[in-house]
Amino acid sequence: MSDTPKPQKLLARLPRGFADRGPGDVAATERMLAKIRETYELYGFEAVETPFVEFTDALGKFLPDQDRPNEGVFSFQDDDEQWLSLRYDLTAPLARYVAENFDALPKPYRSYRAGWVFRNEKPGPGRFRQFMQFDADTVGAATVAADAEICMMAADTLERVGIKRGDYVIKVNNRKVLDGVLEAIGLGGEENAGRRLTVLRAIDKLDKVGPEGVRDLLGKGRMDPSGDFTKGAELDIAAIDRVLAFTSAKGARAEATLANLAEVVAGSPRGTEGVAELKEIAALVVAGGYDDGRVVIDPAVVRGLEYYTGPVYEAELTFEVTNDEGQIVRFGSVAGGGRYDGLVSRFRGEPVPATGFSIGVSRLLAALKAINSPLVATAGAEAPVVVLVMDRSEIAHYQQLVGQLRAAGIRSELYLGSSGMKAQMKYADRRGSRCVVIQGSDERAKGEVTIKDLVLGAELAGADKNREDYLARQAEAQFAVPEAQTIEAVKKVLARHR
Amino acid sequence: MSDTPKPQKLLARLPRGFADRGPGDVAATERMLAKIRETYELYGFEAVETPFVEFTDALGKFLPDQDRPNEGVFSFQDDDEQWLSLRYDLTAPLARYVAENFDALPKPYRSYRAGWVFRNEKPGPGRFRQFMQFDADTVGAATVAADAEICMMAADTLERVGIKRGDYVIKVNNRKVLDGVLEAIGLGGEENAGRRLTVLRAIDKLDKVGPEGVRDLLGKGRMDPSGDFTKGAELDIAAIDRVLAFTSAKGARAEATLANLAEVVAGSPRGTEGVAELKEIAALVVAGGYDDGRVVIDPAVVRGLEYYTGPVYEAELTFEVTNDEGQIVRFGSVAGGGRYDGLVSRFRGEPVPATGFSIGVSRLLAALKAINSPLVATAGAEAPVVVLVMDRSEIAHYQQLVGQLRAAGIRSELYLGSSGMKAQMKYADRRGSRCVVIQGSDERAKGEVTIKDLVLGAELAGADKNREDYLARQAEAQFAVPEAQTIEAVKKVLARHR
Repeated sequence: MSDTPKPQKLLARLPRGFADRGPGDVAATERMLAKIRETYELYGFEAVETPFVEFTDALGKFLPDQDRPNEGVFSFQDDDEQWLSLRYDLTAPLARYVAENFDALPKPYRSYRAGWVFRNEKPGPGRFRQFMQFDADTVGAATVAADAEICMMAADTLERVGIKRGDYVIKVNNRKVLDGVLEAIGLGGEENAGRRLTVLRAIDKLDKVGPEGVRDLLGKGRMDPSGDFTKGAELDIAAIDRVLAFTSAKGARAEATLANLAEVVAGSPRGTEGVAELKEIAALVVAGGYDDGRVVIDPAVVRGLEYYTGPVYEAELTFEVTNDEGQIVRFGSVAGGGRYDGLVSRFRGEPVPATGFSIGVSRLLAALKAINSPLVATAGAEAPVVVLVMDRSEIAHYQQLVGQLRAAGIRSELYLGSSGMKAQMKYADRRGSRCVVIQGSDERAKGEVTIKDLVLGAELAGADKNREDYLARQAEAQFAVPEAQTIEAVKKVLARHR
Repeated sequence: MSDTPKPQKLLARLPRGFADRGPGDVAATERMLAKIRETYELYGFEAVETPFVEFTDALGKFLPDQDRPNEGVFSFQDDDEQWLSLRYDLTAPLARYVAENFDALPKPYRSYRAGWVFRNEKPGPGRFRQFMQFDADTVGAATVAADAEICMMAADTLERVGIKRGDYVIKVNNRKVLDGVLEAIGLGGEENAGRRLTVLRAIDKLDKVGPEGVRDLLGKGRMDPSGDFTKGAELDIAAIDRVLAFTSAKGARAEATLANLAEVVAGSPRGTEGVAELKEIAALVVAGGYDDGRVVIDPAVVRGLEYYTGPVYEAELTFEVTNDEGQIVRFGSVAGGGRYDGLVSRFRGEPVPATGFSIGVSRLLAALKAINSPLVATAGAEAPVVVLVMDRSEIAHYQQLVGQLRAAGIRSELYLGSSGMKAQMKYADRRGSRCVVIQGSDERAKGEVTIKDLVLGAELAGADKNREDYLARQAEAQFAVPEAQTIEAVKKVLARHR
């Protein structure tokens, strides 16, 4: 033994909030993304992708639940001292892209992109610091027909990935209506921007904390079950009632909802404009035939982001699942978006209308798994056939065998470890193989290979050996063929267990 | 006009070395990746993906051309002060992954992944700070059959994406042979690690600077045409000759190369071991039938990374292209890899053999574009049909029209801008549309739509109006049909221009 001190062993681990992805997840995601892409392409959207790193100032400060600069963002300085950041969503980079390539792009400009985004936040269960979004945006269209189109496309997308009609709803609202309500309760003007944001985020928690929770958050504040206190918006009772009248303005049909909203914003020009836009969207939804519960006006939806300026929308899955605490809950939101007319104009000094929509990819994937969607259930490659190495000096020959299998399109592997027969069989089991190919010295002498059907073999291991057909089945589970018939024999075994 | 000062306009631009990707590139890459994936799956490799961010210490310092810690890597501190980095390749994260999940993984463990990596380096033409790699690795196989398999798989992969046999070569060498040479010239031992690395990187520049350039780099140093001076390894003439005898040891056939190498390393146990391994690989290549010039032993290949411990390999495209300076050059390297038996064991304190291979995705894509490979040439969605908006009050009806086209599987768009007929036609041109659908008030009154064939229309614009068939062709380029026949008519026009 040498006296040199051993170098300290490194710990193999990931930073909190980051995760590896195995073959099942990768394949299922790929399949789901392909379906989404198909739908977006059909609507004329085209792919454009931006890099992961942007100038920090170009991204802006638009994260929800974050009031201090750069909180929530991974940032670092370039060698010329300029600050760079990892993108925290796909919308801010798209705004930069459109502004940079404005003249070269067709307008309106429909585009889509899937990509990883990063949040420098405290991770928790199901809350990661790196996650994937799939966005679609229409830039340069002032008409709410663009928002209506994205809502209907969202419905088509959910159905195409396997969510049944009736199991989802696309909810639409309009920030201008909320602005009208806030104006009416005296929260208009630049000086109230902070309080408006507090109100916005209180309403956005409706799903989580219910109307009474929102009432607390609009008033003095709210203590959550863990004892954390969230400061309230300090509105008076009349103002709170008016805000809650807004969030609960949904009627049985769109007409009723719109009438309720018109009442809540009475006297506010901005609010009235918002209701008119919702009315136009509702009419387009009817014309498209999506008024069968697929796309509905719902004033309870506000979205947590500050930059929305008009219609906002959210895709909610309505079927029930059992959550981690064993409670039965609605699956909930998997996507959302809205109109952000101010983002591109930050760069251009002229108004550039835009609206867009973002799918939470792992949320949607979790939903598809929950309903056992065939799209993700059958994703992934077939388990490989394993060619065992019985005699190490013959490895070139075994490699020829596996080469022939691959040439025939059969996913297969040569065992490349250094262990014996038993470990090799265990390896094949671990790979989920249905079949192994064996050639020991006896078989080689006869120019044969042995094919072992691992599925049948496992069944026989627990079978009654006195059964009449036991020997026949055993002969099916393991049999020798001339080497030239290897492919044919392997195909036969694989076909047994499709 | 208000007196409020305008907020300063942001500049829409990307940090140097980062780039956006348009629809053609995204689609072509996607198609190419799918083909690579197919090949790897056939060989039994399975997908696994790691996140973009790792603990800096877990990544280690294995970048080429970088001797100072963390140079070349984007790093930032977590809120608990620990250093995190963006991955600079996919090998170091895989080593961490395997070490972390060692007991749960089948061994040998074949895996693959495509992913973006980041280098905090000075960008240049064709040199980005974010780029994609596609890796395949076999961990837990000490036999060089694993290296041989990856070399043959690399050949299959290149052919499957459209590189013709004869237009590429997979070159194989062995670091142990080079180690033997270095031992023989007195550069063995821990104390010479730095000089060995200098020699390694000098040889790695053979392609770029030629044998005379390498001779300078092994000696006093070399001044490149731009006037930059690279310090040399300060070897004496005899040592330089021996190193160059090694790099030029390639014979007409593998047998000759191996005999030359055996001579160069005579007396060095490690060198002799390396030659024996190359001999084993050569035999497997023959058995697989890849000795027809697809996989060759070539001592000029050493790879620039320090962590390789045995076989190294490189995929080179041999066809010629015209470079940016107008010179005709070989396309060159698109992928490479080798055995890195020390990387996983950094975490485990026990030897874990591993070998792997990385494709430079944008390099390979550029190659496929250079040879006009059908795989990438035909990638991307069909241009959409555009339904014009002639009467804004009828937008719901136009939306129904476009909805019907989409339901029939025809990629189509409703014009969502606010411009008139002329601008809408220009928009359709910009989108590359072959066909637009028009319904003005006249057509609506008659229950008709007008279909305009933009391809034929463009041809006719420059045609001889006195030609006999001019009117007939004009009638084909623009014609009215009952609204109920819109889909049929659009399909007819699209079929003209496949």
